[in-house]
Amino acid sequence: MTSYKHKVQYYETDKMGIVHHSNYIRWMEEARVDFLEKIEWSYDQLEKVGLVSPVLSLDIDYRHPSFFGDVISIDVVIMELKMSKMRVGYKMINREGEIVAKSESSHGFLLSSGRPAILKRDFPGLYEALLTHLYSEKESI
Amino acid sequence: MTSYKHKVQYYETDKMGIVHHSNYIRWMEEARVDFLEKIEWSYDQLEKVGLVSPVLSLDIDYRHPSFFGDVISIDVVIMELKMSKMRVGYKMINREGEIVAKSESSHGFLLSSGRPAILKRDFPGLYEALLTHLYSEKESI
Amino acid sequence: MTSYKHKVQYYETDKMGIVHHSNYIRWMEEARVDFLEKIEWSYDQLEKVGLVSPVLSLDIDYRHPSFFGDVISIDVVIMELKMSKMRVGYKMINREGEIVAKSESSHGFLLSSGRPAILKRDFPGLYEALLTHLYSEKESI
Amino acid sequence: MTSYKHKVQYYETDKMGIVHHSNYIRWMEEARVDFLEKIEWSYDQLEKVGLVSPVLSLDIDYRHPSFFGDVISIDVVIMELKMSKMRVGYKMINREGEIVAKSESSHGFLLSSGRPAILKRDFPGLYEALLTHLYSEKESI
Repeated sequence: MTSYKHKVQYYETDKMGIVHHSNYIRWMEEARVDFLEKIEWSYDQLEKVGLVSPVLSLDIDYRHPSFFGDVISIDVVIMELKMSKMRVGYKMINREGEIVAKSESSHGFLLSSGRPAILKRDFPGLYEALLTHLYSEKESI
Repeated sequence: MTSYKHKVQYYETDKMGIVHHSNYIRWMEEARVDFLEKIEWSYDQLEKVGLVSPVLSLDIDYRHPSFFGDVISIDVVIMELKMSKMRVGYKMINREGEIVAKSESSHGFLLSSGRPAILKRDFPGLYEALLTHLYSEKESI
Repeated sequence: MTSYKHKVQYYETDKMGIVHHSNYIRWMEEARVDFLEKIEWSYDQLEKVGLVSPVLSLDIDYRHPSFFGDVISIDVVIMELKMSKMRVGYKMINREGEIVAKSESSHGFLLSSGRPAILKRDFPGLYEALLTHLYSEKESI
Repeated sequence: MTSYKHKVQYYETDKMGIVHHSNYIRWMEEARVDFLEKIEWSYDQLEKVGLVSPVLSLDIDYRHPSFFGDVISIDVVIMELKMSKMRVGYKMINREGEIVAKSESSHGFLLSSGRPAILKRDFPGLYEALLTHLYSEKESI
């Protein structure tokens, strides 16, 4: 799967002259939304069929600063897929090939009623699509 | 009415070392929300009684930069009050008494059905409250 | 010149279910930065040669809401080019061809010393490039 | 030490009707900046004396959604204080006493030259002040 590309905007920088750390959390969402679109389960469509997917937790390691005008490539993999949850991994790389950040986020799957969805039963197509992109130990992220 | 105070956050600065200009638009909203709360018609409550108030237009003059840690005082007045619209004026001043920005925003009043509300008829209490804060030529904003 | 495209992100929406109005100000910057890059005077490069260009004022008309996943095309023209200032115009259109917003922004040209630049004298190449994209009455924006 | 209070703004909500998860990362910064101010080592002042403190990593657990108008109390403690690093802990509580989020962030201490600062040696006053707020096992965060 091709990487998601984010071009760093002026408004994302701070007075240190680099990208403010909060923006990487937004890039994770951009890349996740793009990933779902590429596997043909766009987030918009998921919301329409009644699946809500709140962020439960996240963690991020900042390795290298990013600068205005940089183009950051973001790779997304499914780290773990459970009954009503998934964990997503992200690797962000600049044009020089440097890792600028590595991160993970956990997401619940809820029905619009607020009850947990059983992904395999309630959305088998999405389940299968996510499974295809499940990270295996052999890969290097 | 006491001014709304906004304390400038680090994440609001950009690589020029000053507040990014897009944040002032958010401060206008903060001050407007605070103003409505002070006249006892909180925006949250307005949404609950079925009044939607989209921003129709805005303009802003940036007079002086703001910096991390600055406390900006924002005065709000109703510039114009029409059947289904209002125009709000803002004056933003730093602790040194310098005007950092002056701006205006126009807002529609819609019923949750999407049809324009007739403010005086549909929400007479809000209409009266806004009228009290209508800018008169004699005042200096 | 090809339009700049902005894809609407989830984090740009608000509880009304549409794009928060403050984001359009950021898209104006994105489109302006892209425009400068296309005429081969990237903003990054301008800062490196000692030209600072603060936003002096802006105004915007919101015509139609935007939604998560929308792709907004933004056309940029130079409305006015003065000795130490320019006024930029923007037209934002969604995929259905609806104008979502029209706006303008004014920008000063300063030397890093803080003194106004005389664009034609100090940066003749940039001056010529901007002149090429000066809006003429015959065009429709 | 009194908690930092953040009032939830309209522009911080998303189309789910709740606060977008990226904003909590900004609230951590707000609370951290406020904490440093309360111990009389404001971040602004630190930058002036040549101490730079980039965010190295962070993690956050989202426990309960926040809504427009909520007032979130944020408690800050120093979890760990090393030669050139610290780890900060945050607990965010709404007015109903519910924990909305718990998080941690790690920060480096660099001299403006880019070399790691030895906090105890280079900024002994700051070191002592931080030590006073070091989390002890007996406390409950």
